[in-house]
Amino acid sequence: MREAALIEFIRRLSSKNCPRNAIIKGIGDDCAILRPRANQDLVFTTDFLLEGRHFELATHTAADIGYKALARSLSDLAAMGSEPLFCLVSLAIPRALASSWSKRFYRGFLALACKYRITLAGGDLARFDRVLIDVMCCGRVPRGKALTRSGAKPGDSIYVTGELGASAHGLSVLRGPFWRRHLRPEPHIEAGILLRRLGASACMDLSDGLSLDLARLCRESQVSAELSAIPVAHGATLEEALHGGEDYELLFTAASKKKIPAHLDSLPITQIGIITPGNPGRIRFDDRRLDAKGFDHFA
Amino acid sequence: MREAALIEFIRRLSSKNCPRNAIIKGIGDDCAILRPRANQDLVFTTDFLLEGRHFELATHTAADIGYKALARSLSDLAAMGSEPLFCLVSLAIPRALASSWSKRFYRGFLALACKYRITLAGGDLARFDRVLIDVMCCGRVPRGKALTRSGAKPGDSIYVTGELGASAHGLSVLRGPFWRRHLRPEPHIEAGILLRRLGASACMDLSDGLSLDLARLCRESQVSAELSAIPVAHGATLEEALHGGEDYELLFTAASKKKIPAHLDSLPITQIGIITPGNPGRIRFDDRRLDAKGFDHFA
Repeated sequence: MREAALIEFIRRLSSKNCPRNAIIKGIGDDCAILRPRANQDLVFTTDFLLEGRHFELATHTAADIGYKALARSLSDLAAMGSEPLFCLVSLAIPRALASSWSKRFYRGFLALACKYRITLAGGDLARFDRVLIDVMCCGRVPRGKALTRSGAKPGDSIYVTGELGASAHGLSVLRGPFWRRHLRPEPHIEAGILLRRLGASACMDLSDGLSLDLARLCRESQVSAELSAIPVAHGATLEEALHGGEDYELLFTAASKKKIPAHLDSLPITQIGIITPGNPGRIRFDDRRLDAKGFDHFA
Repeated sequence: MREAALIEFIRRLSSKNCPRNAIIKGIGDDCAILRPRANQDLVFTTDFLLEGRHFELATHTAADIGYKALARSLSDLAAMGSEPLFCLVSLAIPRALASSWSKRFYRGFLALACKYRITLAGGDLARFDRVLIDVMCCGRVPRGKALTRSGAKPGDSIYVTGELGASAHGLSVLRGPFWRRHLRPEPHIEAGILLRRLGASACMDLSDGLSLDLARLCRESQVSAELSAIPVAHGATLEEALHGGEDYELLFTAASKKKIPAHLDSLPITQIGIITPGNPGRIRFDDRRLDAKGFDHFA
């Protein structure tokens, strides 16, 4: 299959499945064109998904990989409390995968895109001896209302959605419901929008493990944190819940006087600690210092 | 060097070198935040630059690679007649390159970013056994004024900026001024903006070779083309000028009654043919059919 035929396939599939949103020119030109609305900020994120680092062709189907490539970036949009608008996908593949594998990849990608009403507006294609994906997602928020990592204040309560450690545990057993959670994490777009409306003070998604991601949030906010109870996924270990990556749950803070419900739709919310003044990025758990053992690419 | 230290280095270097433009939150959060202005459209493009496909570490310095990764995407912004606004860069590298190599990469990248006043607003980092780069660039144009591939009409004149074949020739000799042109192509941002103001009917940048790229423009515009004179770079062959990639010159069309100057600033403009009705994407040169022999990733 030649490049032009693959692009034509993607264009037809995406125009059938995607909403137009504010995209006035999509696949087929040097750039995609967006007509932004007044009084909105736009948020942008980009995430690699690389064969041999983030997935293996032996254990992940093409549709799983397409799903997850988009889910990771959608989760960043959720963390800002934004509504998905459009995405670009850069895909490099061996020539042998240019036909049916790549079609299944785009079908998996577009099934999730359709669910969260995000337009596939363009991207890049290249040949490489392994599968490489980079997805850029753009979302919109009312002006000045994006949730960030830098708004947490001493005295704020710390919360997470869902349960932690499921994805890390799934990766260690490679089967069962936790493995499916690892393969197909659900981006919490609706929850992010609700948290923005409820007035959360800071938010981020848990991609590299609670201990490392909370330290990052605390550094950006120039605060410390004291953890108490952690909602460990039933069957996973406390270690997996504290340091395991790729849960894609939302970690957020809110002033202690804010009323945060026990569920957002069907998603449970747990208070896991409080923000304290002091050494930026320092975290205590069970009266001991908790080191950031989450995933660091170059550690 | 740990990931956090590298991110801090990039953040400091970019805040020292980049304009803020409309970016209200840059590196360090889940997403970058842009506050768009009224009455503007935004254009988006993304381009891979992959070790072993697009460059080799033995022949390209870290700064060359940083420069070219950005230049390719800036060239797409130029093709739409847009003004650069911000970019995201995804970089995967072996651990051994995480320190001084990656710093030189970002210095090369940011030197070009500074020249064209584009903000580095975020991106992604990963570890991989080869160097992988994906750059997303965003530009702005007055509403409804972006140049596209689809506006060419029968009777329009076809033009290119500069001379063709230099980059392909440089790649075959690996030294001298053509090799430097291959390493460090100049994105024609100013020329693109002037062509938009002059009222060009269609425009794209030449990345995969004239024969293939012109066929793409003709297909998007549902027209044919008849080529006459080609400005071959002195020392390159006609074959390199017709089919060689990576010249990053602008290919554009304009109604025959439009006055197109012989130079835009110091950049020469050459009329190379005319748009004709007929089989979309078909090109004739020297009274013969010209096959699209430019670069196809999966051919």
